[in-house]
Amino acid sequence: MPPRRPLLPSIPGRNKTFATQAPEPKEIIETGRLRVCVVEDTRMNQLLHLRAVASQLQQAALEAVDPAEAVYQAITRVGDQILIDEHAYPLRDFDRVFIAGVGKAAVPMADAVAEVLRDQLSRGIVITRYHHIDRSLASSIRVYEAGHPVPDENSVIATRDLVDLLRQATPRDLIFGAISGGGSALMTLPAEGLTLIDLQATTQLLLRAGATIHQINAIRKHLDLIKGGGLARLANGATIVSLILSDVIGDDLSVIASGPTAPDPSTFAEAWQAIAQFDLIDQLPAAVRARLELGRAGQLPDTPKPGDAIFDRVQNIIIGSNTLAAQAAEAIAKKLNFNTLLLSTYIQGEAREVAQVAAAIAREIVQFDRPIQRPACVIWGGETTVTLKGHGLGGRNQELALAAALAIDGLPNTLIVALGTDGTDGPTDAAGAIASGDTLARARNMSLDARAYLADNDAYHFFQPLGDLIMTGPTNTNVNDLLFLLVV
Amino acid sequence: MPPRRPLLPSIPGRNKTFATQAPEPKEIIETGRLRVCVVEDTRMNQLLHLRAVASQLQQAALEAVDPAEAVYQAITRVGDQILIDEHAYPLRDFDRVFIAGVGKAAVPMADAVAEVLRDQLSRGIVITRYHHIDRSLASSIRVYEAGHPVPDENSVIATRDLVDLLRQATPRDLIFGAISGGGSALMTLPAEGLTLIDLQATTQLLLRAGATIHQINAIRKHLDLIKGGGLARLANGATIVSLILSDVIGDDLSVIASGPTAPDPSTFAEAWQAIAQFDLIDQLPAAVRARLELGRAGQLPDTPKPGDAIFDRVQNIIIGSNTLAAQAAEAIAKKLNFNTLLLSTYIQGEAREVAQVAAAIAREIVQFDRPIQRPACVIWGGETTVTLKGHGLGGRNQELALAAALAIDGLPNTLIVALGTDGTDGPTDAAGAIASGDTLARARNMSLDARAYLADNDAYHFFQPLGDLIMTGPTNTNVNDLLFLLVV
Repeated sequence: MPPRRPLLPSIPGRNKTFATQAPEPKEIIETGRLRVCVVEDTRMNQLLHLRAVASQLQQAALEAVDPAEAVYQAITRVGDQILIDEHAYPLRDFDRVFIAGVGKAAVPMADAVAEVLRDQLSRGIVITRYHHIDRSLASSIRVYEAGHPVPDENSVIATRDLVDLLRQATPRDLIFGAISGGGSALMTLPAEGLTLIDLQATTQLLLRAGATIHQINAIRKHLDLIKGGGLARLANGATIVSLILSDVIGDDLSVIASGPTAPDPSTFAEAWQAIAQFDLIDQLPAAVRARLELGRAGQLPDTPKPGDAIFDRVQNIIIGSNTLAAQAAEAIAKKLNFNTLLLSTYIQGEAREVAQVAAAIAREIVQFDRPIQRPACVIWGGETTVTLKGHGLGGRNQELALAAALAIDGLPNTLIVALGTDGTDGPTDAAGAIASGDTLARARNMSLDARAYLADNDAYHFFQPLGDLIMTGPTNTNVNDLLFLLVV
Repeated sequence: MPPRRPLLPSIPGRNKTFATQAPEPKEIIETGRLRVCVVEDTRMNQLLHLRAVASQLQQAALEAVDPAEAVYQAITRVGDQILIDEHAYPLRDFDRVFIAGVGKAAVPMADAVAEVLRDQLSRGIVITRYHHIDRSLASSIRVYEAGHPVPDENSVIATRDLVDLLRQATPRDLIFGAISGGGSALMTLPAEGLTLIDLQATTQLLLRAGATIHQINAIRKHLDLIKGGGLARLANGATIVSLILSDVIGDDLSVIASGPTAPDPSTFAEAWQAIAQFDLIDQLPAAVRARLELGRAGQLPDTPKPGDAIFDRVQNIIIGSNTLAAQAAEAIAKKLNFNTLLLSTYIQGEAREVAQVAAAIAREIVQFDRPIQRPACVIWGGETTVTLKGHGLGGRNQELALAAALAIDGLPNTLIVALGTDGTDGPTDAAGAIASGDTLARARNMSLDARAYLADNDAYHFFQPLGDLIMTGPTNTNVNDLLFLLVV
């Protein structure tokens, strides 16, 4: 039997007298890029310390998945060789080296690849979102801007140009893919006889009928020549090294940007089955129906499958992901002598409910030093959702932080940071927000009613006057969200 | 930098061909009370094995918080002494020994105390819920049945008899409290001049106005003579050993059964403030208003506070709690060579959303052997809620299991058990349910649509035909809920 002892109430009374001014530091330590002020060991000062720690974790996480940094970490040129993981690609073995970049982070990723290749780059095509060209690229790279999240004619024009490049490739060429989130819309090439409007009408039909995203993806990959391994198939046996920044929970290669260089497990049969399940056969655009019927009858080649010989010369590498960001934050926390627990990188669910779990772990640590002892740093990643009921301003990370603030009210020396790695949480200019055991006390002093703000989905306007929004600016990357829970 | 490598899709394809019949066992091992069949190492057999393990954890957890067992574990008689924790109570030091039992588990707890005391028991009063007398008690113990969750006249009559007993006590007497959930309704004594109807009207007013449970408790403790340390104060300085079975998350002694033997941090001032906040002063029953006004003006003694001398002779001991149940399950898991993580005993939130977090941890273990390596056993405790939208049958644990089944569909060698420790989850005869990676495949074979059952809050009828309900029968205890996540 475990020892039995009287347990005192776990939550100390709310402390309404927190100072909001920082005390004088006793000492200042430089850790990495951040100055940490060491102050008297009081509750207030612990929270200041935790904010500084959280800021360090955030910085490390974002740096690890910065598109250009991630490329530099992944590939190195040593003399004539490009080194990637345990693979070496001697440039003299190839006639030409191309870049095929697509996604919201395509520009910085392609730029970094070009920087590594230097004079060895032959040509490149990059397709990114409007207003996402933040630097000039090598003159050999052509950059397109196109529609996102809804593809537009520019998506098709750009993709056609990329396909022209691929079709000129030979088995003696090397193609660097630079793939990130957003690629599904930015890169599209309707199959023969189909138009962009056909594809969009089909997607709309499926969405309205209640099809799953899995079903919609299966159908789209069978109506589009570049998705579902299409890019790899069009490259005439060229060697492909695809550098991938994952915005998909679980890093499924066939889902990120619709998997242009990855095997596609879905089939024409599955696509047809989904159409039949929702009774949409008669409503489909005629050309779409004709293609799916041919495909189902085995009269069209299916997308390339796992094990297909095409992929013998394709290396897909996740160079940035939620996992890598979380691990980078964990490494810093360890360096700062925190006990760490990377709980999961698959966290999903309604933001305000998932916040309850973060709070429950915080209480367990405060009360029992469990699941890890203080100083404790629990990290998780994923992407929550918000069911909008109010009319306020916020994002899923800010809403999570607000619900967490309510749930950890009064808990000493506890800080929770909810962060969107793209720097723009919901339709706001904040990346997320910070909740601590004193948040509600400080809010009461300013007559901010946390429950009312949460009910109105208005986390932004709750955290803004408290100074607890996280403002990173756009990070040009997106590996979903992170949560840091710190308790000392 | 962490090593970078291509990550394959994490979720293997759904396996629709699971056998539903158990294969022949290769070997049978007796572990504790349960026979574990060792079969061929296939996915199916792993799940059978995990079911057997989960059943062992469940049994250990429930045994640890069985009301009588918990008493026997907590107190021992050695010769003339009653030993409790590091305290010894020599019976010869006391003139008389009483039992004051209240709550849903009061009968088995009082019976166990009487068994330990044997001939030394002078008198006892026990107040429990209707139909909760499952055994005959010593003739010196008088048992009352009363209303729950709404107190009735029998609650008052029984409490009055208990108070008469307490008033006869002297500093040379020893009183054993036997306190469990339900005590707030079963034991009530309206303060002088108040009636039960006054108390109920006040509670109704507060509920309708949207007062928090914290505020309602503060007010009730100031209108009732036995709650909020009242039992201890009425005992004339007798020594009190209060054995407590906690049905409150966090085990706050002042909340369990309204804390009859615990200090009360709440004050008349707080009670008045809550009334004023909701503008209820004029609507209060006249006698209630008069009492709160007198109390607020300092003309009535407040409830006994932490540090009050009364409590020098009071020992409150949590003998059964969610934590102790979770720890007992963890100990068995360790014995069965699982790596264990007791994540939290404070889990709250909407059942179907909290289920997403359990699934996210399962995926992390399957993909990364993190936060703990396989064979992995993650345990948590708490109590979730269900927002009813459908018209089906279920309980919070069954609903959590159903949402978890959807979220771990296809995940290999993964089992999640959601269990209500009282054995009756919601208005059902099931204690909870079992979800595994093959649940949905088996459901599809039986044409059960998991999403539809979840939408209708009808988890009971989903799990019943699958044979995945957990049927323990009423356990006569209640320490909230437990979740076991097993991955091999």
